[in-house]
Amino acid sequence: MTRIAIVGVAGRMGRTLVNAVQQDPEASLAGGIVEPGSSLVGVDLGELAGAGRLGVNATDDPAAIVDAFDVLIDFTTPRVTLANLAFCAEHGKAIVIGTTGLSDAELAELDGYRDRVPMVFAPNMSVGVNLTLKLLETAARALGDEGYDIEVSEAHHRHKVDAPSGTALKMGEVVAKALNRDLKEDGVFERVGQCGPRGDKEIGFATVRAGDIVGEHTVMFATEGERIEITHKASSRMTFAKGAARAARWVASRDSGRYDMQDVLGLKG
Amino acid sequence: MTRIAIVGVAGRMGRTLVNAVQQDPEASLAGGIVEPGSSLVGVDLGELAGAGRLGVNATDDPAAIVDAFDVLIDFTTPRVTLANLAFCAEHGKAIVIGTTGLSDAELAELDGYRDRVPMVFAPNMSVGVNLTLKLLETAARALGDEGYDIEVSEAHHRHKVDAPSGTALKMGEVVAKALNRDLKEDGVFERVGQCGPRGDKEIGFATVRAGDIVGEHTVMFATEGERIEITHKASSRMTFAKGAARAARWVASRDSGRYDMQDVLGLKG
Amino acid sequence: MTRIAIVGVAGRMGRTLVNAVQQDPEASLAGGIVEPGSSLVGVDLGELAGAGRLGVNATDDPAAIVDAFDVLIDFTTPRVTLANLAFCAEHGKAIVIGTTGLSDAELAELDGYRDRVPMVFAPNMSVGVNLTLKLLETAARALGDEGYDIEVSEAHHRHKVDAPSGTALKMGEVVAKALNRDLKEDGVFERVGQCGPRGDKEIGFATVRAGDIVGEHTVMFATEGERIEITHKASSRMTFAKGAARAARWVASRDSGRYDMQDVLGLKG
Amino acid sequence: MTRIAIVGVAGRMGRTLVNAVQQDPEASLAGGIVEPGSSLVGVDLGELAGAGRLGVNATDDPAAIVDAFDVLIDFTTPRVTLANLAFCAEHGKAIVIGTTGLSDAELAELDGYRDRVPMVFAPNMSVGVNLTLKLLETAARALGDEGYDIEVSEAHHRHKVDAPSGTALKMGEVVAKALNRDLKEDGVFERVGQCGPRGDKEIGFATVRAGDIVGEHTVMFATEGERIEITHKASSRMTFAKGAARAARWVASRDSGRYDMQDVLGLKG
Repeated sequence: MTRIAIVGVAGRMGRTLVNAVQQDPEASLAGGIVEPGSSLVGVDLGELAGAGRLGVNATDDPAAIVDAFDVLIDFTTPRVTLANLAFCAEHGKAIVIGTTGLSDAELAELDGYRDRVPMVFAPNMSVGVNLTLKLLETAARALGDEGYDIEVSEAHHRHKVDAPSGTALKMGEVVAKALNRDLKEDGVFERVGQCGPRGDKEIGFATVRAGDIVGEHTVMFATEGERIEITHKASSRMTFAKGAARAARWVASRDSGRYDMQDVLGLKG
Repeated sequence: MTRIAIVGVAGRMGRTLVNAVQQDPEASLAGGIVEPGSSLVGVDLGELAGAGRLGVNATDDPAAIVDAFDVLIDFTTPRVTLANLAFCAEHGKAIVIGTTGLSDAELAELDGYRDRVPMVFAPNMSVGVNLTLKLLETAARALGDEGYDIEVSEAHHRHKVDAPSGTALKMGEVVAKALNRDLKEDGVFERVGQCGPRGDKEIGFATVRAGDIVGEHTVMFATEGERIEITHKASSRMTFAKGAARAARWVASRDSGRYDMQDVLGLKG
Repeated sequence: MTRIAIVGVAGRMGRTLVNAVQQDPEASLAGGIVEPGSSLVGVDLGELAGAGRLGVNATDDPAAIVDAFDVLIDFTTPRVTLANLAFCAEHGKAIVIGTTGLSDAELAELDGYRDRVPMVFAPNMSVGVNLTLKLLETAARALGDEGYDIEVSEAHHRHKVDAPSGTALKMGEVVAKALNRDLKEDGVFERVGQCGPRGDKEIGFATVRAGDIVGEHTVMFATEGERIEITHKASSRMTFAKGAARAARWVASRDSGRYDMQDVLGLKG
Repeated sequence: MTRIAIVGVAGRMGRTLVNAVQQDPEASLAGGIVEPGSSLVGVDLGELAGAGRLGVNATDDPAAIVDAFDVLIDFTTPRVTLANLAFCAEHGKAIVIGTTGLSDAELAELDGYRDRVPMVFAPNMSVGVNLTLKLLETAARALGDEGYDIEVSEAHHRHKVDAPSGTALKMGEVVAKALNRDLKEDGVFERVGQCGPRGDKEIGFATVRAGDIVGEHTVMFATEGERIEITHKASSRMTFAKGAARAARWVASRDSGRYDMQDVLGLKG
């Protein structure tokens, strides 16, 4: 059993992490950390997360639970995360980091801990998205330049402000790289009016924005006679929380180093 | 049994029409017409269409089979179609016209026969597409301005030169009209980069071009908590041929008049 | 603005109803009722529902807010619902009832109020599901006996204990009725091994059970050359809550009577 | 350029093979073989296949074109195929075999040529289906026993007599093997009535039979928070013909041996 403590349990992602760790049969919830002086200090983590009483209470002092946990999960802000990295280095703990928005300087500081802390750092901790990237690479290499047209479609909720999604672009990049293409040249982001027939090397993108769609991505490889479609559908942030719990279990027994989800899932090489 | 003759049986659409009429249990194949002097005169229509011997031969003279048929089906060219309309008017026959590309003058000429010939004239004879338009109207009216985001997605083969498809635009127009919106204002045909959150009245379009996709259209109505999707997928030109056969059966017993597929399917009013 | 009070705001459905009413631009949240003596009496409804302070507090006494609301929404238990019906009859209020599991006797008691209370009573308040049923009826009538094969597919989460879902069966019944078929005879619920070619009148069902799928239903009408698919996807219980809010707005200005969602959506006749 | 001759060009599959080879930029059509004494001897292969005049004529004598081709493609019957294998062994040619229905004795006879002929033998030559099997193996291994429910859905035309399809079963077997499960124990082929919640190790199958669907297969891996779906859709027998052309190009430069499509696509090991 990997003993896991969670940073930021007051927030929505923190509460979801509580549920994910709680449901993981090979992990135990060892503690939850809130901001210093929060009114939630002492609150039962299960009640906080809507999962019923668990008998583990929130604290605002990591040191108070340092003997209780093996791995810390942190989806917070860059400054908080870097402070927790220092804490893990000092006390010989591992850490899983889902924090985004780090500056180049902050990334360099984070990277400086790679020889002292076993850490998993990944902007998208979803097991499914990371596996999908691997499948896309395999598919693109196998289909090579055999006349398969590649199209990336994605759908998100009405509030999303950019298009295509970062994940859709990442999918396009993985495919382009596997085919020695360049997404800057071969990516086609709009088709309107008399746009002519499709080019052989195009990687097309189509975007839907509607309702409460959490996030759906499909990459199609189509030729005369057949199509292969590889689809990922996120239905809640549990996908990220469960990926983090899996990463925590994996990193608990690793040497110091900076890992990503491809390492966790054994998808490299 | 409606006795049907087909114009242009030498072409791909004509051969498909032979198959559709042949398979229709309430229709019989009464004749097939080819260009004057064609080497196919006398050929068995079934063998021509890959359906086995039928015992009905191709002719280049409509007058030779005038007593054999009740309805003519014509998916050819404007000039040929107008000549056949005159023939039907003279001999008291009905006609189903799937010919496209008529000029305004040719349309006016065609319309001039409405008091003398029972005719079905429709640019897309697919039963499914026409039903889909009706379903979209019903859905848009029921969902009204209740916060459902509307998105039209379509996919076609790599050779298609325009986007979105004419059918996708027609679907958008039907929805816009039902909601008192204007597709010129509310249609959104591209979303790239920092495009901001979705507008409430937007009708979005997404386009895929790949492989040999005959034609797929989906209209999504999405809000918080649910989605409704109405999808049409064409898999071959049989969809148009079967619609024409159905129209022929329907129009055989009508008074003179110009009808469309909504009339044939009983979807009006 | 329709002034709405909600029964059972302590439960998950009650909290979702608070959010749905709060987001509805033509409705205002007028009160929330909890069980007598609940510790939640006096709590702000918005904070209870995770929507921020709204300035309306929970009460355990409907009489205390009787002048504040026009319509009651009740998704609770049969006995509570019948007591609330009596209350509405006495005070000239309308009611929307999403309670399920009423016995025949309880249904008869409920029906006894039809001349004294404007009520909407529906087991599935989702606007989308109800609209889908209407679309299916329209589609089945238009396609008639024209050789379209009909298949109902549904997917639900791993915990669901019955198959096919009640909604899938309802969809099959609507289609069967429109075609003068009988689901008991024509429904096909399994195909395994050498089952032979498909019968013309079959209405097939396919079931998927996996993960956290809230509920997805697709009815396909397929023939040579084309398919029409009508799909409903529920993503959260907001779909039921929003339907209830819409029903409340609609019923506020009706005469006494027992209505269902087809009435609310104007889909009858 | 690989020079390819095709056996059985009179049949539908043979004609499709003519089109596939003709369209392959790295292959040339070197000949087409019909049954001895066929009336098609001497006919232009392009005209036969509806592809326009190609200047290569059908023959009934393989020996007459033995210097013109490098690889033979044979989708015919076991006896014809075995005769052609003997011919290839004698003349140092390679062969691609898509023939099905071989008895155990015929299979043994075929296998006896593995040291004398470079041959690709595969019951399903579709590149996409074979790639899909590889993707499924990768996905199943990565998701392991992490709580992903696996469901296989397939749809075929109304004439198909067995269920689930052989390809669906093969997909289930690949997944089961990767997870050390046994499809005989864990495959669930029907869910009707009060069937209870889903078992963790179940591999479910759902079947649709409708219209003219050539063949669609989807394997879903679903857990709380996300789904991955890997889908293959066949739209015509061109998918098999193109796979055969690719196999012919690949096998032309191989040593003697019996290969399958996983070898051709580089998906082994």
